[in-house]
Amino acid sequence: MTRRYAVVGAGAIGTLYGARLAAVGHPVHFLLRSDLDHVRRHGILVESVYGDVWLESPAVYSDPCDMPPVDVVLVGLKTTANDRLGGLLRPLVAGGATVVMLQNGLGVEELAAVAAPHSEILGGLCFTCSNRVAPGHVCHLDYGSITLGAHHRGGRPAGITPAMVAVGADLEGAGVEVVLSPDLPQARWRKLAWNMPFNGLSVVLDATTDELMRDPATATLAGEMMDEVCAAAAACGSPLPVTTRDDLLALTATMRPYATSMNLDWAAGRPLELDAIYAAPLAAAHTAGVSMPRLAALHAQLRFLDSRARRTED
Amino acid sequence: MTRRYAVVGAGAIGTLYGARLAAVGHPVHFLLRSDLDHVRRHGILVESVYGDVWLESPAVYSDPCDMPPVDVVLVGLKTTANDRLGGLLRPLVAGGATVVMLQNGLGVEELAAVAAPHSEILGGLCFTCSNRVAPGHVCHLDYGSITLGAHHRGGRPAGITPAMVAVGADLEGAGVEVVLSPDLPQARWRKLAWNMPFNGLSVVLDATTDELMRDPATATLAGEMMDEVCAAAAACGSPLPVTTRDDLLALTATMRPYATSMNLDWAAGRPLELDAIYAAPLAAAHTAGVSMPRLAALHAQLRFLDSRARRTED
Repeated sequence: MTRRYAVVGAGAIGTLYGARLAAVGHPVHFLLRSDLDHVRRHGILVESVYGDVWLESPAVYSDPCDMPPVDVVLVGLKTTANDRLGGLLRPLVAGGATVVMLQNGLGVEELAAVAAPHSEILGGLCFTCSNRVAPGHVCHLDYGSITLGAHHRGGRPAGITPAMVAVGADLEGAGVEVVLSPDLPQARWRKLAWNMPFNGLSVVLDATTDELMRDPATATLAGEMMDEVCAAAAACGSPLPVTTRDDLLALTATMRPYATSMNLDWAAGRPLELDAIYAAPLAAAHTAGVSMPRLAALHAQLRFLDSRARRTED
Repeated sequence: MTRRYAVVGAGAIGTLYGARLAAVGHPVHFLLRSDLDHVRRHGILVESVYGDVWLESPAVYSDPCDMPPVDVVLVGLKTTANDRLGGLLRPLVAGGATVVMLQNGLGVEELAAVAAPHSEILGGLCFTCSNRVAPGHVCHLDYGSITLGAHHRGGRPAGITPAMVAVGADLEGAGVEVVLSPDLPQARWRKLAWNMPFNGLSVVLDATTDELMRDPATATLAGEMMDEVCAAAAACGSPLPVTTRDDLLALTATMRPYATSMNLDWAAGRPLELDAIYAAPLAAAHTAGVSMPRLAALHAQLRFLDSRARRTED
């Protein structure tokens, strides 16, 4: 069976994976907004360490109601656009399509589960350095793996599901490294253990990951912030391995100099993904009786910067 | 008796108070470095909400060994220059002159006490908005009071001392509002309760105090940081009034838009006073068994910015 895909939110992430699936023969339908006219005329170009893909005449739409039935919906929206998630998803999931949330943060599968009550919801955690450099044009510079996990509507680990296996097989067939996680909440907390320190510090200090690792003050701070995430994860029922901090710091030290996704959003004047990456895990930790004071302080700084930038734009 | 004064470190603070004392007839001897030639030719100009002062031919020196005996030494050096404090003070305190440390932070009287073992050491906490705008030229925009307290070599409150009263009377005679504090450690912690949040946040977020107060995220964060200072002060034996946070936030909300001293240092490319304002109180709190996680995180961010700026200059 050749599964049919829809891509909602064709930015750096949705375009990268949607184009790869299309390149190996899957029907892929792209829902576009600002890039629609450009892509209709010029197609989609993904320059990638996996090999470049050019889709000359991709199937593109401006309205989800015009899209044909699909088996899987890849959601690549920024979480800051999740107020539109329900309206975009509902027409696409009437037939029970699987939804894959290719987003950062915590709580995004819960939003999808409300919009798609009869669908299986997967989380797709992307470890990639991919930028949208122009309309319909994405540069994928490094990494690229996806960790898939299934959402359990009771908040517990869901194990390995047939839908996960199927989507994972399609992505692997398209050349993407896939990890199947039986415990999506734990996978999300582990990603937060990296994202919460480095996304925020990279914005507030306007720094790349290698600069932050090279300075002992910020490297230590990042580690302390990771410890805060680990404590919160454990209190929320998703204990992380005791080596998480050391593993992540060692990984970061060997990474190529890297502007985080939030740093790229900031530089491009886009709103920051603060609700999903900071407010939601801070609230979950608070409910579980754990405080994350360093990360709460960073969150407040980011709120200030984001609010000021939004005001300046008006 | 007309007390004779020396001013070591004639920046915004030392020049302001030294010039006022000179204007009312005290012999005041200024130790200068970069501004020496300019001041020899053009004098010292202080434009001030207290009224302007112009000293046409002030007594200026480049070497403390050339300075005449004085009764009081006002130290207006930035704390970042305190590695030079001993060498500058020793020639001036041979006769037992009182030393007044017009500096921010914690632990600065201890440094003076080492350099001036036979002197009484006072702390002078300046609540003022005063900038050095050009060589020998200071603009004093707002506020101006000094809280004086005496240093006790055992670290305890020293009460009201005759030297404090004398220096306080001279400053009041020069038009400066003076508060005499019997408990210098407590006065220093209270000032830190304002300086630690607002100095650092104003640099990291490049913001004025009114911007930080207007945003609920940063106003709340500043209050939480004040609570951290209050807990540290109490653990270090200097409990602050329970209303400290509310008092300081209310005060800040009514202040004119204000660039903090650290924000001015940052904008001017000067090193930041991180040892005195952050490292020393954080170490004291740590020794007393109290952590200040939000302020430790802010300190790490400031270290990163300061190190990067120093590197860029080299």
